Amino acid sequence: MKEKRVKDSKTIMSIMVTPDKSNNHGTMHGGEIMRLMDETAYVVAKKHCRCDVSIVTARVDELEFYRPIHIEDVVTVTGELVFVGKSSMEVYVLVEVDHLSCGDKGDKVALSAYFTMVAKDKEGNRYEVPRLVLMNKEEEEKYQLGNQRYLKYKEKKKTNV
Amino acid sequence: MKEKRVKDSKTIMSIMVTPDKSNNHGTMHGGEIMRLMDETAYVVAKKHCRCDVSIVTARVDELEFYRPIHIEDVVTVTGELVFVGKSSMEVYVLVEVDHLSCGDKGDKVALSAYFTMVAKDKEGNRYEVPRLVLMNKEEEEKYQLGNQRYLKYKEKKKTNV
Amino acid sequence: MKEKRVKDSKTIMSIMVTPDKSNNHGTMHGGEIMRLMDETAYVVAKKHCRCDVSIVTARVDELEFYRPIHIEDVVTVTGELVFVGKSSMEVYVLVEVDHLSCGDKGDKVALSAYFTMVAKDKEGNRYEVPRLVLMNKEEEEKYQLGNQRYLKYKEKKKTNV
Amino acid sequence: MKEKRVKDSKTIMSIMVTPDKSNNHGTMHGGEIMRLMDETAYVVAKKHCRCDVSIVTARVDELEFYRPIHIEDVVTVTGELVFVGKSSMEVYVLVEVDHLSCGDKGDKVALSAYFTMVAKDKEGNRYEVPRLVLMNKEEEEKYQLGNQRYLKYKEKKKTNV
Amino acid sequence: MKEKRVKDSKTIMSIMVTPDKSNNHGTMHGGEIMRLMDETAYVVAKKHCRCDVSIVTARVDELEFYRPIHIEDVVTVTGELVFVGKSSMEVYVLVEVDHLSCGDKGDKVALSAYFTMVAKDKEGNRYEVPRLVLMNKEEEEKYQLGNQRYLKYKEKKKTNV
Amino acid sequence: MKEKRVKDSKTIMSIMVTPDKSNNHGTMHGGEIMRLMDETAYVVAKKHCRCDVSIVTARVDELEFYRPIHIEDVVTVTGELVFVGKSSMEVYVLVEVDHLSCGDKGDKVALSAYFTMVAKDKEGNRYEVPRLVLMNKEEEEKYQLGNQRYLKYKEKKKTNV
Repeated sequence: MKEKRVKDSKTIMSIMVTPDKSNNHGTMHGGEIMRLMDETAYVVAKKHCRCDVSIVTARVDELEFYRPIHIEDVVTVTGELVFVGKSSMEVYVLVEVDHLSCGDKGDKVALSAYFTMVAKDKEGNRYEVPRLVLMNKEEEEKYQLGNQRYLKYKEKKKTNV
Repeated sequence: MKEKRVKDSKTIMSIMVTPDKSNNHGTMHGGEIMRLMDETAYVVAKKHCRCDVSIVTARVDELEFYRPIHIEDVVTVTGELVFVGKSSMEVYVLVEVDHLSCGDKGDKVALSAYFTMVAKDKEGNRYEVPRLVLMNKEEEEKYQLGNQRYLKYKEKKKTNV
Repeated sequence: MKEKRVKDSKTIMSIMVTPDKSNNHGTMHGGEIMRLMDETAYVVAKKHCRCDVSIVTARVDELEFYRPIHIEDVVTVTGELVFVGKSSMEVYVLVEVDHLSCGDKGDKVALSAYFTMVAKDKEGNRYEVPRLVLMNKEEEEKYQLGNQRYLKYKEKKKTNV
Repeated sequence: MKEKRVKDSKTIMSIMVTPDKSNNHGTMHGGEIMRLMDETAYVVAKKHCRCDVSIVTARVDELEFYRPIHIEDVVTVTGELVFVGKSSMEVYVLVEVDHLSCGDKGDKVALSAYFTMVAKDKEGNRYEVPRLVLMNKEEEEKYQLGNQRYLKYKEKKKTNV
Repeated sequence: MKEKRVKDSKTIMSIMVTPDKSNNHGTMHGGEIMRLMDETAYVVAKKHCRCDVSIVTARVDELEFYRPIHIEDVVTVTGELVFVGKSSMEVYVLVEVDHLSCGDKGDKVALSAYFTMVAKDKEGNRYEVPRLVLMNKEEEEKYQLGNQRYLKYKEKKKTNV
Repeated sequence: MKEKRVKDSKTIMSIMVTPDKSNNHGTMHGGEIMRLMDETAYVVAKKHCRCDVSIVTARVDELEFYRPIHIEDVVTVTGELVFVGKSSMEVYVLVEVDHLSCGDKGDKVALSAYFTMVAKDKEGNRYEVPRLVLMNKEEEEKYQLGNQRYLKYKEKKKTNV
């Protein structure tokens, strides 16, 4: 099975906020942002596998909103693999916003979250995803923290049963 | 300031899944479900305050997908207050699904998550929300666990600074 | 063929009104409300059959608007079987609205209508639906009125031919 | 107050059915069709007044579905004034469908209904709409039947109170 | 292969502009208008062939915006064949707008463009479309200009290779 | 008035194609793609001005479709300034597509076009946009061709009057 680097599946999605994606106060609907983040995590996972697997969202954790997003803002969503389990992939998703107004200096962080995506083959069985080749210290440290979250989720699942 | 019970703001939202809310495999788009959950948490928080405040989503935690949702399924989302901080409200959101097919027995759990909503007044300052009157042991236990999560998030925020 | 009660298929759908569902005056688009009512009637009919039939809308009668619905209102649509013909089902659909504002007391009636739904099997032939077990005087009286409307529609159809 | 003819406000709306407007069986969603019919009735009423009034839907009656509408069909909705009360206008709405396929001969009737629209001025008071000039026997006969429905609705309203 | 006239496929589509189709300034989104124009050109081409072919958009040229379109305006899009190549069809698309306001006199030109559509059979091969019977001088002159554009595009394509 | 470089306003927008954006054959709706291209051109123009101006689309030219876009494809739209007139800005828009499938090598060109955007101030008067600093031979050559198109459009406008 092929190994892949973080940058092989790194994905940047971007849209402009239109009124149909916003609430009554002229800010982007929280659910619409989550939809965009989920889509980005989906593409990252799909690119990491690059094959005939289906990708489903299994978990979202530590999704935090730092600043509101307004109509006509440009929203940029960056997704990057942090950790891979056997068939699961943890994607860090960062949302930045650019107000496009006078004297504005561009992208500011608006949200972040961890999405856990799972790959399945045509029969619905879990599909073993490519290993992640870590290229530097930063990627290695993130991977360790991802592994800790992974083990914690697994532990919790057992307790629930 | 008035006190309120959990059941005063409990909210049940329900829709049928149409093709425009689903992906290429005939299942409901993960982001669309999150949008619906966010909307439900918003209404719970709004009902708890029942006043001229604006409600914003601050965090989503432990969002788990247990089973896929298909086109024509009826999706029922239940939101219930678990804990209130000074201006924040933690809402437990549960998604159930009914396939409407032959011999089907109705609602099955599809997702759950904790949404933290914050109330703000017209000037954008944090608004002190009504206290939560706990009516039984179950509500008290959930409140304690909500308080623990609340303190953990606060701690983490300090560390980030 | 199994008999079923009114409450076996009673359905409550609920959403919050977002700007993409409203017109230029900040009120919910009449057509969007009808769409939601039609969806609710569909689910009632589907639940009454709970089998591999397709349900189509055949008629809508006496649809009345009593009060406008605004952005951010919570709309609750209740659908309940009133009468069943051989393959047709008449569903009474009631729309209530909750403004979520200061001092507001909750649900108020906004619309009502009768939807006639028809069940068809895979070959497109009319499918004989389960009989309706009436549990009390109120259900019986409504059934009688439903039967009168049914006969009137049938009569009119003949006249048109 | 100006008088107007039926043809001064006659309106033809037309769209092609895309997948986002259809259900799981490839046919146009009943609610989407009603939305289109409501929009057409709205434009007829607006054209009849041609002034700064707001138009609201008050009733829909005898909405009948004659044949299903499929994805890629061209749907043509024709709206025509039948009767005017003091501030109310009854619009007959006819939906025709063209399948665009081999050997197809074009428009076939798919639905029809009566929409009652009401005009209001800026203060929300009922606005007296222009009288309808009837140009031929057919328009006169339709007007009489419209008047009968109008009186029946009025009668029913009193009974409800 | 059958010949057809311009008027056999002439198509008029019409909608009212709702807020979900407009931008932050209350005017219809440029992209939404183009979508409507493309849909109209699609229907013209489909009607000209009236058979089991698929129609794809190949080019759009000289799309000009003459005046803005506002929420609640009625937009009428007229599509008319100008020229046919072997499997390509050039459609002239004209957008008119009616503001429905006091003293307004109805349709004014808002946009125009040339859409080149191509017909393909089930195997994805180019499908030879019916010839165009020109009925008068005006149609003949337009056809000549269409032919000139057709040859220019073809020339450019060669140069690009 | 400040000068700006091409790269100061270069914009990359990206989305994944969902079923609500596609037609009956599983390919992205031509009109939806144009909507996305228009949005990208809008952001480029807005970034070039970075001030309280409104941007309107004035023309689209030489829009060509090279290959179809399918559901679940990732679509990347790149917009780049080519030429600026007094208040007009010509943006070259390129659409690339990535199928995300087995053995696929990523982005392939799907469409391209020239969008002419115009800046207006609050009174609706034309706003003089920043000059374009050209950084290399390629940008200079493109600018010359842009200028030729600009003069041709101006000429044509006079002829129409």
